[in-house]
Amino acid sequence: MTQTTVAAWAATAPKAPLERTTIPRRELGPHDVLIEIKYAGICHSDIHQVNEEWGAARFPMVPGHEIAGIITEVGSAVARHQVGDRGGVGCFVDSCRECANCRAGLEQYCTGPLGMIGTYNAVDAEGRPTYGGYSTHIVVDENYVLRIPEGIGLDQAAPLLCAGITTYSPLAHWGAGPGKNVAVVGLGGLGHMAVKIAHAKGAEVTVLSQSLRKQQDALKLGADHYYATGDPATFEQLAGSFDLIVNTVSANLDVNAYLGLLKAGGTMVQVGAPENPVPVNVFSLIGGRKSLAGSMIGGIPETQEMLDFCAEHGIGAEVEVIRADQINEAYARVVASDVRYRFVIDAATI
Amino acid sequence: MTQTTVAAWAATAPKAPLERTTIPRRELGPHDVLIEIKYAGICHSDIHQVNEEWGAARFPMVPGHEIAGIITEVGSAVARHQVGDRGGVGCFVDSCRECANCRAGLEQYCTGPLGMIGTYNAVDAEGRPTYGGYSTHIVVDENYVLRIPEGIGLDQAAPLLCAGITTYSPLAHWGAGPGKNVAVVGLGGLGHMAVKIAHAKGAEVTVLSQSLRKQQDALKLGADHYYATGDPATFEQLAGSFDLIVNTVSANLDVNAYLGLLKAGGTMVQVGAPENPVPVNVFSLIGGRKSLAGSMIGGIPETQEMLDFCAEHGIGAEVEVIRADQINEAYARVVASDVRYRFVIDAATI
Repeated sequence: MTQTTVAAWAATAPKAPLERTTIPRRELGPHDVLIEIKYAGICHSDIHQVNEEWGAARFPMVPGHEIAGIITEVGSAVARHQVGDRGGVGCFVDSCRECANCRAGLEQYCTGPLGMIGTYNAVDAEGRPTYGGYSTHIVVDENYVLRIPEGIGLDQAAPLLCAGITTYSPLAHWGAGPGKNVAVVGLGGLGHMAVKIAHAKGAEVTVLSQSLRKQQDALKLGADHYYATGDPATFEQLAGSFDLIVNTVSANLDVNAYLGLLKAGGTMVQVGAPENPVPVNVFSLIGGRKSLAGSMIGGIPETQEMLDFCAEHGIGAEVEVIRADQINEAYARVVASDVRYRFVIDAATI
Repeated sequence: MTQTTVAAWAATAPKAPLERTTIPRRELGPHDVLIEIKYAGICHSDIHQVNEEWGAARFPMVPGHEIAGIITEVGSAVARHQVGDRGGVGCFVDSCRECANCRAGLEQYCTGPLGMIGTYNAVDAEGRPTYGGYSTHIVVDENYVLRIPEGIGLDQAAPLLCAGITTYSPLAHWGAGPGKNVAVVGLGGLGHMAVKIAHAKGAEVTVLSQSLRKQQDALKLGADHYYATGDPATFEQLAGSFDLIVNTVSANLDVNAYLGLLKAGGTMVQVGAPENPVPVNVFSLIGGRKSLAGSMIGGIPETQEMLDFCAEHGIGAEVEVIRADQINEAYARVVASDVRYRFVIDAATI
C-alpha cells in the first residue's frame, strides 16, 4: 500500500464537534500492518483531549485508542500477524524499544526521548501526526498490534484495549485473586471492566458508587457487594476491609476516607487522575503500611495477556454500538455519565 | 516484685521542661519481666508528644520508647527471657493479640479496641497510664520484650528499637537489596539508620539532604552517593533513578518532585508524617506505576529480625550519651537538628 487517504471523524479545533473528514495513512513499511477498523471505543480521555482539558492538543484530532479490526495487508517483514487476523490497537503505536521500561514490556512508561507515541494527538518518530481509531483504516508497526482471540466480538473487544488493560494491569500487579477483597470505585467504562476482571480473577469484589442506582448492574457484572459512597455509614462499616481499591473516578474524591477502607498493607490505585493535586494525610498511609499508587494502561505483553484472559473467561465490554454521526451525542452522554458502559463506533458508518 | 516506685524524668504539662520525679511500676505478673534500664534514646516523637504537636497527650509524661537494659526479674510463667538477658522495649508494650494484624506479627497496626498500647502517653488494658524509658526500670509483658544480641553496645542498641525498626521495616518490605537503588531523604536519627541498614542489605544507597553539610558523614555511614536537595539540578540529574525512596523528613516536602526521582514501579515511603496533608499530583503516580506509601515502626517478630540483622552486620546507632539532667538541652538540639545522630540517656544518671 502506498500512502493513502481514508475517511475519519475529527475535531478541527479545541472543543469543536467532531465531523467527517479524510486523513492520510502512511505507506506500509516492512514491519507495518494495515488494519481495517471494525469498531472503535469512545473513552472519556478522548473527550478530555478534544477539549484540551489535559493541556494543549494537536488539531485536527482523530480520537480513538480502543481499536478492533481485521488485518488486511502486512509489510514484507511482518512475522507476528497475517492477513485475516483479528487485530487490536490500544493507546500507543510506538515507543523507543530500547529503554529499560520498553525492554521490560512496560512501553507505556517508555523513557526514550519521545516516550510512548500516542495512537492520536501525538507525533511519530518521523514527525508525522498520529490519528486514532475514529477512521476506517490504520497503519501500525506489527509490534504494537495485539491479537484479538476468537470468542470475543470485535465490538466488545475494542474497549478492552484501554478500559480493559487499564483495570487488568493494576488488578494483576497488586494480586487481585482468591482470598483478596477488592473494591472498585466508580462503575463506568473502567469500573465495569474492573468488576468483570477482578471477579474472573477470583477476588471478592465490592463496588463503591455514589448512589444505589447501579446496584443491580454491578451484581450482574460479578460484584459480590455494593455500597453507596453517598452514605457516610459506608465508610464506617467498611473501615479496614480491602486489600486493594481500584479508583476509576477522575473527579477529586476524599482519598483519605478511602485509605481508611484499606486493610494494613493495602493499596489504593488510581487509574483516573484528577486535574488538581489530592491532599493526602500521610498518617492515613503510615498507620497501616498503606500505599496510594497510580497505574496507566499496560504494556504490549500484558495487554495480550489481558485479551487472552478475557477470551478464556468470556469477558467483553458492555457496549452500545453507535453510528459515526452519533459521536457528538455520545460525547455529551459520556460527560453526563449516561452510558452503560461503553460507546463503540461501528466503523462501517464512518 | 510488688508495685514499686522508681525514678524517672517527666514533663508535668504540655511543653513543660522535663524534671526528675517518681512513677509507679506495676507488680510483676506471671508473664511480665522487669528490666533495669541502661539506656533510653531520645526520639523526635518524644518532643512532639511532650509539646502536644500530635494531639492531646497525658501528663505527667515519661517519654522514651528506645529502651535497652538488663532483665533482672521474670514472672513465674515467663518462657522467652531469663534473668541476666539483655532486653529491649520499643514503641509499644501490648496489643490485642487477637486481630489479624497481631496474629500476623504486625502488632503496630493492631485493630483491637485499644490498638497497640504505646510505651508511654497511653493507657494499658487495666486503665493504668504507661510510662516510658526515661526511668530506671520498666515492667513489660515478655511478648513485647526483644532480645538484644551480644555484640551491640546497649547504648547503640537503644535507638534500634525505634529508629532502627522504623527504617528496617520499609527497607525489608520493599526489597532493598543487591541491584536496587535506594534513596534516603534526610540524614538524622532515622536517616542515618536507613543508610546503614540499606547498605548492609546490599542496596546502592544515595542520601538526599538539604545541603552538602553531612556529605562526609553519609559516605562514612555507607552511602554510595550524596546530593543536596537545595540544588534544583539534583532533581533533573536523578530523575527516574530510584527503586525506593525512604523519606525520613517530617517537614512538608514537595512530594511530587521526589516521585519524579522514582523509576517506573518505584515506591516512596514516608516514615515521618508532616502535620498537614501533602498535595499529591496523581499524574506523578500514574505516569510510572509509582506508589506513595507509609510505614510505622515494625512488629515484634520483625523488630527481633532487625536486631539480629544489626548484630550480624555490626550495626548500631551513632549516639551521643548524655546525663538525664541534659534532656532539656538535648531536646533543644534535636529540634535544631544539632545531633549526630541520636541522644541516648545514661539511665544511671536518672
